[in-house]
Amino acid sequence: MDEFDLISRHLRKIASTEGALGLGDDVARLTVREAAIVTTDCLVEGVHFLPQDPIGTIARKLVRVNVSDIHAKGALPGEALLVLGWPKDRAESELVAFVEALGDDLGLWGANLIGGDTVSTHGPLFLSLTLTGKALGVSPVWRAGAHAGEDLWVTGRIGAGWCGLREVLAEVSGPDAEHYRTPALPGPGAARLVAAHASASMDVSDGLLGDAAKLAEASGVGLNIDLEAMPLAQPDTAVMDQITHGDDYQILFTAPVSNREALLAQAGQEGLKVTRIGEVTAGRELRLLSNGNPVPLPQKLGFAHE
Amino acid sequence: MDEFDLISRHLRKIASTEGALGLGDDVARLTVREAAIVTTDCLVEGVHFLPQDPIGTIARKLVRVNVSDIHAKGALPGEALLVLGWPKDRAESELVAFVEALGDDLGLWGANLIGGDTVSTHGPLFLSLTLTGKALGVSPVWRAGAHAGEDLWVTGRIGAGWCGLREVLAEVSGPDAEHYRTPALPGPGAARLVAAHASASMDVSDGLLGDAAKLAEASGVGLNIDLEAMPLAQPDTAVMDQITHGDDYQILFTAPVSNREALLAQAGQEGLKVTRIGEVTAGRELRLLSNGNPVPLPQKLGFAHE
Repeated sequence: MDEFDLISRHLRKIASTEGALGLGDDVARLTVREAAIVTTDCLVEGVHFLPQDPIGTIARKLVRVNVSDIHAKGALPGEALLVLGWPKDRAESELVAFVEALGDDLGLWGANLIGGDTVSTHGPLFLSLTLTGKALGVSPVWRAGAHAGEDLWVTGRIGAGWCGLREVLAEVSGPDAEHYRTPALPGPGAARLVAAHASASMDVSDGLLGDAAKLAEASGVGLNIDLEAMPLAQPDTAVMDQITHGDDYQILFTAPVSNREALLAQAGQEGLKVTRIGEVTAGRELRLLSNGNPVPLPQKLGFAHE
Repeated sequence: MDEFDLISRHLRKIASTEGALGLGDDVARLTVREAAIVTTDCLVEGVHFLPQDPIGTIARKLVRVNVSDIHAKGALPGEALLVLGWPKDRAESELVAFVEALGDDLGLWGANLIGGDTVSTHGPLFLSLTLTGKALGVSPVWRAGAHAGEDLWVTGRIGAGWCGLREVLAEVSGPDAEHYRTPALPGPGAARLVAAHASASMDVSDGLLGDAAKLAEASGVGLNIDLEAMPLAQPDTAVMDQITHGDDYQILFTAPVSNREALLAQAGQEGLKVTRIGEVTAGRELRLLSNGNPVPLPQKLGFAHE
């Protein structure tokens, strides 16, 4: 199985837009123009997913970890480039299933594959996607931009990534196992909500507390986070684990208090779950509150793939 | 050593443009606009480079295999995103040297690092760069576009990649060992030449004959290639190996006969070596000629990293 065979036989089927040139050139045309952004995230076997995970869910996770970054900026996905380091001992039937799921999921989020590179390796499965996006507003919404007094919001549920991984490792079919394998994104409605209302925004991919600390640092503000308000995936189990581990792929954002009503109305129209989990403060401190009282922060706020 | 440490300590130093946002967000601003193109190429330890290759030359090779694609389209590099799969057992001092060489070489070709992703793995060193470019002309020059009767040109010397690899494997310090490790690109002068004159163009990275076959196929033409005209790196050694193996990173292009004089004049001004190695024909056949007589084509025209 050589590089050209891989590309021509499987990837061409899902690269049908004009910019892709049928994957028949060394470079692709980039059509995204104004307010363009780009992100790249990789997934490696044994680090970001388990060797035994179904190949289709790995493909969808690769797409979604990148789409999540684009949506969090109040933007919609545009064009994608794939780098595929395929282990020599993985079956070609798996490759076919991978490409089909990748094409499906890119299509689901409105992204087009325009190019990439493939290599057959002796190492673990190594996947990387570069994804462009176009901001829905005049500008993308960055991590910096939060102001003291604003509300802190989060979409969906927090902790589903951690709870799901526990279920997968224990080989029980719990409610969040599927989310761990193929994150359920809040979707383009969340991108529209961010574009319309958010002052600062990022996706929650490495643990809510750690990501909140990053947003606060980038904005030069503090945050009070209300533990009781947190929309936990499984409220009756390890709370600190759920708010410090990764793979949630929800969106954490700040917005002026004056937007609160309009924001909730728009979320309702979009069928989007959003929860106000705290407020932006003038200090630089990240504080976790329970019934108004400070709770000691865990030593490790977030999760890094080491 | 975790992901955030890697990024913040080493990569921020070389990501100083506005679009990079100091690598402090999940996405980067893409500033390239008109006639924009994008490419992504990966390098994997044991496949594209040897484990014992100096880390600085690996970084430069990563940059150059991508810059080569951009130059071949008559374009100049713009913005870069790095995916770095760093083996857990590689020293951090190597990482510092890698980032320094990467920054140096991106700067040399006018490219700016704006983002990326890093992961620490148990697999081989896995590197991928996504590079945007901006066409110098109205449009990039694609593989398709050659017309019967045109000249076929190549920059520099062909076979240096293969000769260099032989030297490196034999541990002799031949003239091309350094080219294998850090390809000497023809440079931006070649991009200007392509933009001004070429009808079709691509870089020679997988063996001249195989790449010529791809250009011919994309253009729907045939090619007569004159073996005597070929600017071989080492004319007295295995000729067929030199024209069928990879890592040359020269530019193969076609241009109207009427451009011949102006093309040579511009190449002279740029200090650029170009050689007319054949002509475009109306058939679909790739023919290798020696003193006007057909030479049987080798079974394998190019080299794929399997």
